Amino acid sequence: MNALNRQWRLVRRPVGLVDANDIKFGEAEIPEVHENEFLVQNLLISLDPTQRLWISGKETYFPPMPVGDVMWAGSVGVVKSSRHKDFPVGAHVSSFSFGMQDYCVSNGEGVSVIPPFVPLDAWFAVFGHIGITAYFGLLDIGQPKAGDTLVVSGAAGAVGSLVGQIGRIKGCRVVGIAGTAEKCEWLKKDLGFDATINYKTENVALRLKETCPKGIDIYFDNVGGEILDAALANLSIGARIPMCGMISQYNKAEWSGPTNMMELVNKRARMQGFLVLDYLPRAEEAMTQLGGWLNEGKIKYRVEIVSGLASAMTAFNRLFDGANQGKLVVDLRNDSH
Amino acid sequence: MNALNRQWRLVRRPVGLVDANDIKFGEAEIPEVHENEFLVQNLLISLDPTQRLWISGKETYFPPMPVGDVMWAGSVGVVKSSRHKDFPVGAHVSSFSFGMQDYCVSNGEGVSVIPPFVPLDAWFAVFGHIGITAYFGLLDIGQPKAGDTLVVSGAAGAVGSLVGQIGRIKGCRVVGIAGTAEKCEWLKKDLGFDATINYKTENVALRLKETCPKGIDIYFDNVGGEILDAALANLSIGARIPMCGMISQYNKAEWSGPTNMMELVNKRARMQGFLVLDYLPRAEEAMTQLGGWLNEGKIKYRVEIVSGLASAMTAFNRLFDGANQGKLVVDLRNDSH
Repeated sequence: MNALNRQWRLVRRPVGLVDANDIKFGEAEIPEVHENEFLVQNLLISLDPTQRLWISGKETYFPPMPVGDVMWAGSVGVVKSSRHKDFPVGAHVSSFSFGMQDYCVSNGEGVSVIPPFVPLDAWFAVFGHIGITAYFGLLDIGQPKAGDTLVVSGAAGAVGSLVGQIGRIKGCRVVGIAGTAEKCEWLKKDLGFDATINYKTENVALRLKETCPKGIDIYFDNVGGEILDAALANLSIGARIPMCGMISQYNKAEWSGPTNMMELVNKRARMQGFLVLDYLPRAEEAMTQLGGWLNEGKIKYRVEIVSGLASAMTAFNRLFDGANQGKLVVDLRNDSH
Repeated sequence: MNALNRQWRLVRRPVGLVDANDIKFGEAEIPEVHENEFLVQNLLISLDPTQRLWISGKETYFPPMPVGDVMWAGSVGVVKSSRHKDFPVGAHVSSFSFGMQDYCVSNGEGVSVIPPFVPLDAWFAVFGHIGITAYFGLLDIGQPKAGDTLVVSGAAGAVGSLVGQIGRIKGCRVVGIAGTAEKCEWLKKDLGFDATINYKTENVALRLKETCPKGIDIYFDNVGGEILDAALANLSIGARIPMCGMISQYNKAEWSGPTNMMELVNKRARMQGFLVLDYLPRAEEAMTQLGGWLNEGKIKYRVEIVSGLASAMTAFNRLFDGANQGKLVVDLRNDSH
């Protein structure tokens, strides 16, 4: 066990992309374990766009994360010592409450034990919050029917790549929007997307018109902004827009758009936000189904590993410039410090 | 019968508010009636914000109205001569196909016969497209439950004032947003709204926070723009936003906002557009129910009459500056020309 507890702490609210003066790397004592508590050592930490919202100071679906807190994150850890009967030493556990640090003490609230048969590197990419988000966001909010045209933005991202594949399984024609030729190639060749649009080199509105001649039945939105406007301009009558997030806006002080919301009236369309939190009681349904598809080879994923806790916050900005490939995860298992 | 057919024709696409160079008043011959056709004399013509969209040149839920056409409008007329068995002379008929003119010939497509017991001045205010819009927009899309907080913009308008009253009948707390003290007074005193906000003199976001301490469960939107942003900032979890229209934007070349769509995610809220056209097959349900409430004194309405076809297009702009009080209708019954 490491003698010290390395931590990333929010010291200042960022403007634009996060930098080293906003979230600082430091050390603290390893906290003591009391009755009905256990000590967790983080093994893998998930980097997600929504973390940028938590530190923005805005009221979101949570109150703003206070300046001074250890950075909030989803993570997977191992129980190192325990005075809690439900969390034995050696168990793999997952939570949003462990923070971006080596160690923390938990009383078990909001903590799940990961079944031993789940490979840890698939946890964040297919199961956990990503899989539950993709599964219910598409099926519950998007209501796909065979033959529907499904468009996904952030399509090569963790949620987007799953959404597209679930759409294919349900019989949809799937068009993915991503930011590099390599990502578009991966979506088409490996994941079976029917068409892709590179939003950095192509006119998205025009290409949506070409690739969706009957209009978009479902637009699964991860990004907001101009791409949402382009999708609104190409809806079919009765379209559904599950709103997962608006990555394009998270680093902005003033959010903008969309400008053509009247398309919701013209096309009698529905735009609906959702949060994974509301689906946690139904998590098992998603995980069972996703696990089945994974075993049958119907779902593929990729994980981009960032080595070492010290590299975490530099890597974080890769979520916003289109650089990351697949689920971005910080691996602490080989950390020596 | 008048010897000539007076008409308003679109001669140029307007920029901003419509003026006399965009839509011109002229005369034409009265058209001939052929087999399976009938001649209609317009008695009442409805002025509606959505007409501004039709002439904008934009694709909306209809293709753009061509320059040169007689201005499209909803109207009520009387059959003056007939070679069609379903439309006898003397019948009162309603349609969106008669145009802003004295006379037209119809083959009956898209024409309803108004039952003799319906007073004509209630037709546009309570029945017809206004009533069907309010009834299904609130009940089908808004899904009100007793105890819900319902906010209506354009609350003193034809649709808005009905929506608020139907909300009250369904047990909602109703807050209306309107543009004059007189309208707010009418909503509270005569229609039983629980609270009102004068958007021209009050801070809407702040007043929504005050008047909706538990958040907005249903925001029935007639106006879009800044008021929509203010409503988004005050939603309750699971809120519904029936989108009826965006009057605040119709005269603009570049539409704007809303800027805080992320609130749909934060509050797991649903925004859904709808069109009265889709509910025409269920019109009888709405009209029966609305007629019942009208007879029981549970629904009140007011109609602002514009006298004479020649005054129609000047009056039209009253829909956009908050000047009109209740359903705006052009009365041709006393026209002499």
